[in-house]
Amino acid sequence: MGKTTVREETRVGAGTTIEAWATFSAGAALQPYEYESGPLGDDQVEIAVSHCGICHSDLSMIDNEWRMSKYPLVAGHEVVGVISAVGANVRTHRVGQRVGLGAQSGSCQACHECLSGDQNLCPNIELTMGHRHGGFADRVRCAWQFAVPVPDEIDSADAGPLFCGGVTVFNPIMQFDVRPTHRVGVIGIGGLGHLALQFLNKWGCRVVAFTSTEAKRHEAMGLGAHEVVNSRDSAAIKKLAGSLNFIISTVNVPLDWPVILDALAPKGMLCLVGVVLKPVGVPVFAMIKGQKSLSASDIGSPGTIATMLDFCVRHGIRPVIEQFPMSRINEALDRLRSGQARYRIVLENDFA
Amino acid sequence: MGKTTVREETRVGAGTTIEAWATFSAGAALQPYEYESGPLGDDQVEIAVSHCGICHSDLSMIDNEWRMSKYPLVAGHEVVGVISAVGANVRTHRVGQRVGLGAQSGSCQACHECLSGDQNLCPNIELTMGHRHGGFADRVRCAWQFAVPVPDEIDSADAGPLFCGGVTVFNPIMQFDVRPTHRVGVIGIGGLGHLALQFLNKWGCRVVAFTSTEAKRHEAMGLGAHEVVNSRDSAAIKKLAGSLNFIISTVNVPLDWPVILDALAPKGMLCLVGVVLKPVGVPVFAMIKGQKSLSASDIGSPGTIATMLDFCVRHGIRPVIEQFPMSRINEALDRLRSGQARYRIVLENDFA
Repeated sequence: MGKTTVREETRVGAGTTIEAWATFSAGAALQPYEYESGPLGDDQVEIAVSHCGICHSDLSMIDNEWRMSKYPLVAGHEVVGVISAVGANVRTHRVGQRVGLGAQSGSCQACHECLSGDQNLCPNIELTMGHRHGGFADRVRCAWQFAVPVPDEIDSADAGPLFCGGVTVFNPIMQFDVRPTHRVGVIGIGGLGHLALQFLNKWGCRVVAFTSTEAKRHEAMGLGAHEVVNSRDSAAIKKLAGSLNFIISTVNVPLDWPVILDALAPKGMLCLVGVVLKPVGVPVFAMIKGQKSLSASDIGSPGTIATMLDFCVRHGIRPVIEQFPMSRINEALDRLRSGQARYRIVLENDFA
Repeated sequence: MGKTTVREETRVGAGTTIEAWATFSAGAALQPYEYESGPLGDDQVEIAVSHCGICHSDLSMIDNEWRMSKYPLVAGHEVVGVISAVGANVRTHRVGQRVGLGAQSGSCQACHECLSGDQNLCPNIELTMGHRHGGFADRVRCAWQFAVPVPDEIDSADAGPLFCGGVTVFNPIMQFDVRPTHRVGVIGIGGLGHLALQFLNKWGCRVVAFTSTEAKRHEAMGLGAHEVVNSRDSAAIKKLAGSLNFIISTVNVPLDWPVILDALAPKGMLCLVGVVLKPVGVPVFAMIKGQKSLSASDIGSPGTIATMLDFCVRHGIRPVIEQFPMSRINEALDRLRSGQARYRIVLENDFA
């Protein structure tokens, strides 16, 4: 399909009937749902979804855990697919191109953050899930900047989890300048953590995995950990005192923060990417004595996503996934809720 | 006095009878106290104290606020004076040289931190006050590395407060890479804050002072603030939301931390240098959304102190001080306790 044809198609502006799986009330089972997209925006692309990963934040939104969900809600924000239409102003993307879409579907493109390449920090961020209908569907739309081309070397099923889970842990490694010489920790070996282990191993670091699931010990070593510590065993963590330059926490439950901060070397940083609803109590004296920091990070910019994909190709990094047809989405969500998923569930579009 | 003579003096190793002002129980008035120094260490210098600033942490130690004081305690760790003796291994310092000594009097010189120029983070740090007798005395001793030469352009009375109060706020500016383009905040305009305002103004930043004392408003502007906000007025702080790249908090009382973190721009950092005994509750969601950090910093290395002194000379930065003879030390401490000091009290040695 040629470029001209596409643009003409778009100019028709008739919109698309999108088939999706939606939540109609907090925590309810998802049901088939059809909605009219309206005309495609001039700066948007439409993606024919082939795969969509399931992130823990999909559950949080489905369950209204963050008190910001509006129903009907179409979750899903680890999308991979092929561009099916492009808006009038889109010059760099073409119909038929394989792209991914993560948690962010748009930004103002004009604020200081957007102009500085920190689009993920735009105060007027548009979220794929919540601000619009997401990727548990046959089609989804976004501003072209957030449809990031997927390199040929990465399978579509593997690519999805990189777009949210992957960049959520890759971004702090970039932003907070983790060095190959560093000793690092990864707390929580799940959808995010199992990618963080791979990234940090290939980054050149010494990697300590923290997990409360003893059964993951062997797998964590296979994913790049050099050492595994039980995250509920404060005595074991105490043995690491003063040793880690950077710790990334992917969990959404309170931990023994003072003991974890104590595991940091002088000048070390604990970075939170898991949303812990209860405030983290920081012991100031201990932080001062070691010049330590507590930071946080949220997804990543399109540029960072592209850099991450390149790093994945270079090092053969891929998520460990379980695949379900999208029609079995409720079963897949239950599996994620149960904590049994190893490590990321990816739905394959089977709309007729 | 020639170098050879000095070394010979030192080799005698007879020790010195040091006259000091000591605390004998938590919070008690200081009393005259005499102690024998013992032989000078091979890597030590002895300083004949001419001036010693009073830092809020002197009060904390005198009062045993941090539960680590041992009595009799000779506090004082913003020392300026002239070297009166050098140990056998000291090659770079000479008797008669004017130096300053801050909160740190020694380190192991062998650990990773020491070898990396982060002597202030040495796990075996020796503190001028607490690990040995400090500067409220006619003499004090330290490892030669921590006796930092005072440039001729800086008066002895002015130099003292730079060695703890000054470097405590200068160090995070260096360590956390504050840029001249940044908009910054300084919370607490006292002994530390009034120096931070000057440093950051000359650093090129836009500077907002936070103080709960309205009477300091005009003075804060004179010291380099471009704007002054009442630190107890959450509504006023809310108007700064998203605007500051770096905030340094010098206070030792809990503040409305979520509102202050909200004043940070995306990627902004709140750095604590004041010891707040109650843990700081960090709202994780807000931190994640803005990729924000909370850090902490403690004093600075000898190299950083020297850099700071050079910066002070270049820009004419000096503390605003009130002077007392050391014999009126209890009166001076009471004035500091009362919150009336503007902005740092410096004692002048008047031992007979």
